[in-house]
Amino acid sequence: MSELSSSPSPSVAWIAGVGASAGLGAALGRRFAREGYTVVLTGRTAQRVEAVAAEIREHGGHALAAVADITSEQDLARVAQFVKREGILRSAIFNAGNAVRAPTLELSVDAFESAWRTNVLGGFLFARAALPLLLDGLDTTGGAARAASLLFTGATASLRGKPPFAAFAAAKAGLRSLAQTLAREYGPRGVHVAHVVIDGGIDGERLRSAAPQRVQAAGPDGLLQPEAIAESYWQLHRQARSAWTQELDLRPWREPF
Amino acid sequence: MSELSSSPSPSVAWIAGVGASAGLGAALGRRFAREGYTVVLTGRTAQRVEAVAAEIREHGGHALAAVADITSEQDLARVAQFVKREGILRSAIFNAGNAVRAPTLELSVDAFESAWRTNVLGGFLFARAALPLLLDGLDTTGGAARAASLLFTGATASLRGKPPFAAFAAAKAGLRSLAQTLAREYGPRGVHVAHVVIDGGIDGERLRSAAPQRVQAAGPDGLLQPEAIAESYWQLHRQARSAWTQELDLRPWREPF
Amino acid sequence: MSELSSSPSPSVAWIAGVGASAGLGAALGRRFAREGYTVVLTGRTAQRVEAVAAEIREHGGHALAAVADITSEQDLARVAQFVKREGILRSAIFNAGNAVRAPTLELSVDAFESAWRTNVLGGFLFARAALPLLLDGLDTTGGAARAASLLFTGATASLRGKPPFAAFAAAKAGLRSLAQTLAREYGPRGVHVAHVVIDGGIDGERLRSAAPQRVQAAGPDGLLQPEAIAESYWQLHRQARSAWTQELDLRPWREPF
Amino acid sequence: MSELSSSPSPSVAWIAGVGASAGLGAALGRRFAREGYTVVLTGRTAQRVEAVAAEIREHGGHALAAVADITSEQDLARVAQFVKREGILRSAIFNAGNAVRAPTLELSVDAFESAWRTNVLGGFLFARAALPLLLDGLDTTGGAARAASLLFTGATASLRGKPPFAAFAAAKAGLRSLAQTLAREYGPRGVHVAHVVIDGGIDGERLRSAAPQRVQAAGPDGLLQPEAIAESYWQLHRQARSAWTQELDLRPWREPF
Repeated sequence: MSELSSSPSPSVAWIAGVGASAGLGAALGRRFAREGYTVVLTGRTAQRVEAVAAEIREHGGHALAAVADITSEQDLARVAQFVKREGILRSAIFNAGNAVRAPTLELSVDAFESAWRTNVLGGFLFARAALPLLLDGLDTTGGAARAASLLFTGATASLRGKPPFAAFAAAKAGLRSLAQTLAREYGPRGVHVAHVVIDGGIDGERLRSAAPQRVQAAGPDGLLQPEAIAESYWQLHRQARSAWTQELDLRPWREPF
Repeated sequence: MSELSSSPSPSVAWIAGVGASAGLGAALGRRFAREGYTVVLTGRTAQRVEAVAAEIREHGGHALAAVADITSEQDLARVAQFVKREGILRSAIFNAGNAVRAPTLELSVDAFESAWRTNVLGGFLFARAALPLLLDGLDTTGGAARAASLLFTGATASLRGKPPFAAFAAAKAGLRSLAQTLAREYGPRGVHVAHVVIDGGIDGERLRSAAPQRVQAAGPDGLLQPEAIAESYWQLHRQARSAWTQELDLRPWREPF
Repeated sequence: MSELSSSPSPSVAWIAGVGASAGLGAALGRRFAREGYTVVLTGRTAQRVEAVAAEIREHGGHALAAVADITSEQDLARVAQFVKREGILRSAIFNAGNAVRAPTLELSVDAFESAWRTNVLGGFLFARAALPLLLDGLDTTGGAARAASLLFTGATASLRGKPPFAAFAAAKAGLRSLAQTLAREYGPRGVHVAHVVIDGGIDGERLRSAAPQRVQAAGPDGLLQPEAIAESYWQLHRQARSAWTQELDLRPWREPF
Repeated sequence: MSELSSSPSPSVAWIAGVGASAGLGAALGRRFAREGYTVVLTGRTAQRVEAVAAEIREHGGHALAAVADITSEQDLARVAQFVKREGILRSAIFNAGNAVRAPTLELSVDAFESAWRTNVLGGFLFARAALPLLLDGLDTTGGAARAASLLFTGATASLRGKPPFAAFAAAKAGLRSLAQTLAREYGPRGVHVAHVVIDGGIDGERLRSAAPQRVQAAGPDGLLQPEAIAESYWQLHRQARSAWTQELDLRPWREPF
């Protein structure tokens, strides 16, 4: 029985950057659904997002697919309307982004720009779409009792630039900076803005396709498990407002750093 | 019913830096006791530590006072033996330390040294006393299933030096560095070493005596609640080893930073 | 008599982001011209760039105006050809950028994007245009004897996001990350890439127009003098390659930080 | 002809941590002596310090050996009196310290404490001895025209703890924090406090004895040259107070970071 099931209007978690079922976006969806949240899952590929939503529903959760391009203000405005109809937005998670690898002088201008669009502009547009709904939810239900969170997925590259990640690192550094600004701006208004630095490979479909040997070589728990990451997001969301975390790192126990 | 109550040998949490009941050390004790841990509480002042232990026992927890000077290798070796007899050490929390305020040239050499003894040497001696027990626990029970954590309490001053905190900040920076070394050294051996940056005033006895107006002016949840902090320590302890946090910050929602 | 005047092919410094004579770009031009460098000055406004170039020539320096939009690959390719004809590029300085202030939700998408274009994409395009010339210069003249530097102007906002600077800080963080990537990528090939964090107001035309009271109130040396900043860029350029700085901060003696 | 030779009372640079002639302390002495400063050289070993002083005098500089234990308040008070008689202290450089390597649990308590004494307590005592003299010098001669600097030598370990450097890193982190406090406290009073992060091996006697193969393998300029480092200290000292650096890093061009 969920802690939220007696709420007249359902609590909603909106998760952007949902791809394969074996990925972080999907795991975040499952984690919040397990607590009784209606999860709205946003990703670019209808088939994938719908598959994740269906899977959650099969396990008794409330999940809805909302296909959108994270770099489109219109798309996000449309999904925000959709979220609003479903309930009260309590957590918005920006999990989009993808790394490009290339020596810096071999990066095309398009690739450099695209990294920014997906990671930084996307984060900005998502925050703009989600914040009014998060603030509305606080007004309706009282700030202290009800949490509102806006969570961003970062990476090792968020903290330092290193080849061959010029484009990705510059974008992730920008997203991290944006999360800091929003934390300082919206924290005192009741929205918990946090940034999670994921340092290491995630044991998901992306890595399994791109670097199967790496997955093989990692050893037990040598890669980040999506469910384990999702648990930390959930705990961030649940933190009492007297002791909020703005940033934490997550890495496998054996990861050198 | 605790998750650990069926264990033949009790799980122990050893918390150093326990003072008033309205303080972080005591809240950490209560939090781990609530999960069925035997909590060994270490502090300098017998009366205070015993009062906290008694209070936990009154609420049905297992708590033991172990008076010790955190800067004494002998004291800590004695308490480590005591911990060993009580069960399997699974979490060791270093929460000692106290801020001195003074313009740098007015600090006595003794005060400067004392800040280091309590905060850095204490952390070093505590880690040396606790690590063999934490490793033993892993050997006995299997690393994956059972968590072992070594957690350090930091402060805003851990991240930067600022007057009038020359002594305190230099010490806290040293402790943070030590936590990083230990994380890199013992993480791959199965001990989760983390450092918590507490940024803001804690709503505890110390602040209530020292700065009652500040407590008054803070507004709802404007100070860190010890129970809220303790929750994050518990969650750190519980993190799966595929996704460990090395550092997180905690601050009240309205705290400027 | 300049250290470089006997060189058969002149040493060139290319400075992007040149505006008013009372500004950092112009001061950088004067500093390198004083050492006998041919300075190529790039800015958007023909009249301003030409005025700065003329002023340097009047004082006996070699200065050339090269009007360009820093966000245009074509413009920069054209200026790079121009630079190449003038001599051997030894220092390329990216000093473009401008802060936008607004509460994050009131920033237009255009303003957010524009901050990125000027600060990050501009830095990327400038680096791409300058690096081949800097490497060519090393090949011609021997890496050890001759310095090659690529210097980026940062700001307090490069290090942390804070309202009302969501767009500017995200951009500056991205530029700083890019400078780190380039330092790691091109340092071992002989190009010294450094990033300068300017923390405080610059005593230049921009601040004098925008905030005359602040200039008034700053007191002696309470604002950064462009000539003093330029001196540190020159010293960075001159550092022997056995001891290069990747990042330094510059702030007035009385600036709180 | 030195810029300072016409001064009625000589300008003094006090350098603590002087050992072999082929080391940073000696190079700092030579650099300041070259500018006409009277250099007071402090180290533990009389023979070595005197040899460095003699060498500087042979090249026409003014250099004086002042043997002292950097961890002794009395010794430093005595040297401070000596400095005062020689002229006006304008730069005080803390360059003491030595790295201990060991797995953390194998470090003796004495070794851990000794690292703190040399690196942090030493820095604190040196700052206390030097600051009154630096402030006196400003009073006598006018803050703007005459520089006063207090410079600290840091290391990679200042920024992060990593085995086998638990003791050294904790100490260096503490020293860095102290430098930050002093910068914030004494900057607005006219003393430029800066911290230099030396990231890489110094091509000096210590490394040549301890790791000759590493010196061999480093390649041209693959290690930090003491003279190159000393140049950056001198430039820090000369910075105009409108644009002071609090921290910079120095590393060889090919050093991975």
